[in-house]
Amino acid sequence: MNKTVGIFDSGLGGLTAAAEFEKLFCGKRYIYFGDTARVPYGTKSADTICRYAFQDTRFLVDKGASLIIVACGTVSANAIDELKRHFALPIIGVVDPAAKRAAEVALAGKGRVTVLGTSATVKSGAYERAIHKIDKSIEVRSVACPMFVPLVENGYTKGEAAMLFAKEYLEPTLDFSADAVILGCTHYPHLSGVIGTVLEGSILVNSGKEAALAAAEYITVDETEKGEPDFYVSDAPESFTRLAKVFLGRDGVERAKCVDIESY
Amino acid sequence: MNKTVGIFDSGLGGLTAAAEFEKLFCGKRYIYFGDTARVPYGTKSADTICRYAFQDTRFLVDKGASLIIVACGTVSANAIDELKRHFALPIIGVVDPAAKRAAEVALAGKGRVTVLGTSATVKSGAYERAIHKIDKSIEVRSVACPMFVPLVENGYTKGEAAMLFAKEYLEPTLDFSADAVILGCTHYPHLSGVIGTVLEGSILVNSGKEAALAAAEYITVDETEKGEPDFYVSDAPESFTRLAKVFLGRDGVERAKCVDIESY
Repeated sequence: MNKTVGIFDSGLGGLTAAAEFEKLFCGKRYIYFGDTARVPYGTKSADTICRYAFQDTRFLVDKGASLIIVACGTVSANAIDELKRHFALPIIGVVDPAAKRAAEVALAGKGRVTVLGTSATVKSGAYERAIHKIDKSIEVRSVACPMFVPLVENGYTKGEAAMLFAKEYLEPTLDFSADAVILGCTHYPHLSGVIGTVLEGSILVNSGKEAALAAAEYITVDETEKGEPDFYVSDAPESFTRLAKVFLGRDGVERAKCVDIESY
Repeated sequence: MNKTVGIFDSGLGGLTAAAEFEKLFCGKRYIYFGDTARVPYGTKSADTICRYAFQDTRFLVDKGASLIIVACGTVSANAIDELKRHFALPIIGVVDPAAKRAAEVALAGKGRVTVLGTSATVKSGAYERAIHKIDKSIEVRSVACPMFVPLVENGYTKGEAAMLFAKEYLEPTLDFSADAVILGCTHYPHLSGVIGTVLEGSILVNSGKEAALAAAEYITVDETEKGEPDFYVSDAPESFTRLAKVFLGRDGVERAKCVDIESY
């Protein structure tokens, strides 16, 4: 009745997972933290990513979260095991749920999955490991798409520039002809249009959506507290609040509050 | 005889200033700090930028720097006055030297300057103020080019994508027909080719180069200590070292050391 879900991300991107959460847990309160002072995580070392993830989680636990959705692909790929070992509450990353869904699609097809992610996510090999834990025979190709995040953050989600980079990253994988393509970074669903055009015939797996669905297996809608979400960021709350309306596709977003995440 | 120059930037970009320093102060030691754990600064709030800049400066002072070149356009635009008030050593940003050079060019021409920078730099209005302090009659246009840094960092310094964004940002300023165009972010000199093609006829002012020239007015080559530069970063020293060779255009770059900048 009074459980609260906490969601964190390196910045704004996790709002794609929050949007999916809002669809599933309609009218239920959640706490969102976006580490806008230290975004992006995708270019940082595994040690630094892990340290940041601990601070982000401690903050949400401190605010009363009873379940954590790690909406950041980079953290899910690099630090989820450490978080699970350290914290005594359910912690759901985006990797395992998305890997599970992609594996299901692949096993019903030619057995092929393409993973799109940041450099750190691809380097970690986490999606590949998660998929092979389900079935070793699934072939996995991973593609780092480092320009996708800046494209989305600067509003280039369609048009010439978005298509140019979608082709640059994805055309070399066309011969692989994947059954499922994991959008392994929370920003990437905003580029579904161009990605889907280049990779026509593949099913796109939205990792944020799969994480929200996985959360619903741990915690029922009835168990969660009613109310508006609380948004926290580590920097620039105004621009977060403005963009949150776009990411969540609705008005009435409460102003984000600023926190000193380094003190957690 | 034993003075040492300290150079800092939010990341790698300041190496364009370091490269210019190496040309002017051949064989002389300097200390470089790149805040690779917290890059980029250009999207952060003025308060956060200021706090980071203080830590970066304290670190270099602690390491023995006797003059600081702030090679970061965002810090130079948002925090240089606070740094100058607080620290008792010469602090040279990229804004004043570049503004001075651009004003000279403009006053010999039609009196027009275009400033290219990150969102934070443009928002600060620092270049405009610095130019108007020299001559109020100079017309200034500022253009935020947020995709330029990710383009450079991902190696797209020429070709279709670089040209696409150069046209997107710069074609709307063609009617202005500036005498001088300030490359107000240390990454931008790497895009000189496409910027120069779109803005043919304008003189490009490299802010890192102007800062290195300004340092030479405070400190003579003879006064500075001989030796190899020391490179420090707050994260991912390997990738910094690899890219430093590209930015500096030479081999024999010492491995960067990692420091915990948050403790300064």
